[in-house]
Amino acid sequence: MIILSGPSGVGKTTLRRRVQKKIDPLSFSISWTTRPPRPGEKPDQDYHFVSPEQFEKQIRREGFLEWARVHNDYYGTPSKPVQTWLRQGRDVLLDIDVQGAGQVKRKMPEAVSIFILPPSREELKRRLARRRTESPQALRLRLRNAEKELADWPRFDYAVINADITDALKSLSAIIQAQRCRVR
Amino acid sequence: MIILSGPSGVGKTTLRRRVQKKIDPLSFSISWTTRPPRPGEKPDQDYHFVSPEQFEKQIRREGFLEWARVHNDYYGTPSKPVQTWLRQGRDVLLDIDVQGAGQVKRKMPEAVSIFILPPSREELKRRLARRRTESPQALRLRLRNAEKELADWPRFDYAVINADITDALKSLSAIIQAQRCRVR
Repeated sequence: MIILSGPSGVGKTTLRRRVQKKIDPLSFSISWTTRPPRPGEKPDQDYHFVSPEQFEKQIRREGFLEWARVHNDYYGTPSKPVQTWLRQGRDVLLDIDVQGAGQVKRKMPEAVSIFILPPSREELKRRLARRRTESPQALRLRLRNAEKELADWPRFDYAVINADITDALKSLSAIIQAQRCRVR
Repeated sequence: MIILSGPSGVGKTTLRRRVQKKIDPLSFSISWTTRPPRPGEKPDQDYHFVSPEQFEKQIRREGFLEWARVHNDYYGTPSKPVQTWLRQGRDVLLDIDVQGAGQVKRKMPEAVSIFILPPSREELKRRLARRRTESPQALRLRLRNAEKELADWPRFDYAVINADITDALKSLSAIIQAQRCRVR
C-alpha cells in the first residue's frame, strides 16, 4: 500500500498518472469527491464525482478508509476496492490529501507514505494561481491550506521534490519498486 | 549506508560493480582480505589483499568496522574511509559477508541492509561449483557456509532475487535511490 500525498498544486495528479503508466501492476484507488470535475478530469477514472447526499450516506455506512472535508468539499477513499486488492496481494496506490494520508497511516502503519514537495513555497503559489479553475476566494483558501499541509512532510516515510517531473517520477518509481523487495 | 550481502556465489560482486557504474555518486568501501585474489579481481579495487600479520595488527588497533574469519580467511571493513565518507554526507556501499553485515547493522541500525538471494538452493550450488578457483575441500566448506548464510535473509531490510542480472540490478538501484528520498 502506497500513499501519495502533498499540498494542492504540487503536481500529484500528473505524477500519479505517469507512475501508473510506468509501473505495472499498480491498482489505483479512485477517490470519491463532491467537488465538480476540473477541466481534463475524467469521471470514474480520476475521481468518482458524487453528491453531498451520496457521500454522507457512505460515511454513515462506514464505507470509507478515510474521508475529509477539504476546502468545503468532501473527499474520501472507499474501503472495499482497497481491501479486495490487498487481499489479492496487489500493490495499491492512494492519491490523497495530507489529512487523509495521516488517517490511513494510523489505521495501516505498514503502508508507505510519500510526500510530494514543491521546489519552493513561491513555486507552489505560482502553480496554484496558474490553475485558474477556481474563484479568488477558493484559491485563497487553497493557498492557506497548502501552507498548513506543507508543514506535515516530516511525518511521512519518503519525500520527493517535484522540481523536474522526470526526476520526481524516477524517485517515485524507485520507492515503489524498492517496496517490492522489502522483507516483511 | 548500504550493506550488500548474501551467500558466496550468489553474484554479489558482479551486481556491486554494475550498480557502482549505474549510480553516482556511491562510495564503495574496499574490504581487506587475507585470501589470494581470484582471476579477474583487481588489488585495491575489489579488495586490499594483505597478509594475516597485517590483518591481525589492524584488528589490535581496532581499525575495523567489522571483521570475520570466513572459510579460514580474514575479511574486514576498515573504519576510516567509511567514517570519512559518512561525515561528508556521501552514500557508502559495503559488499560484505552475512556475519559482517550483522555486525555493521548492530553498530549502525540506520544502515540499510540488502540480501541477495539465489533463485534456488540448487542454482547456488551450480554457481559455486562453476567457479572452480578453489580446491574441492574449500568448495565443500563454502557450500556448507552458503547454506547457513542463506537462512539469514529474513533479518535484512530488503531481499533481491538474483535470477536475472538486469532485473536484480534494477531492484538494487531502486532500493538505493529510494533511500535518498527517505525522511530522517
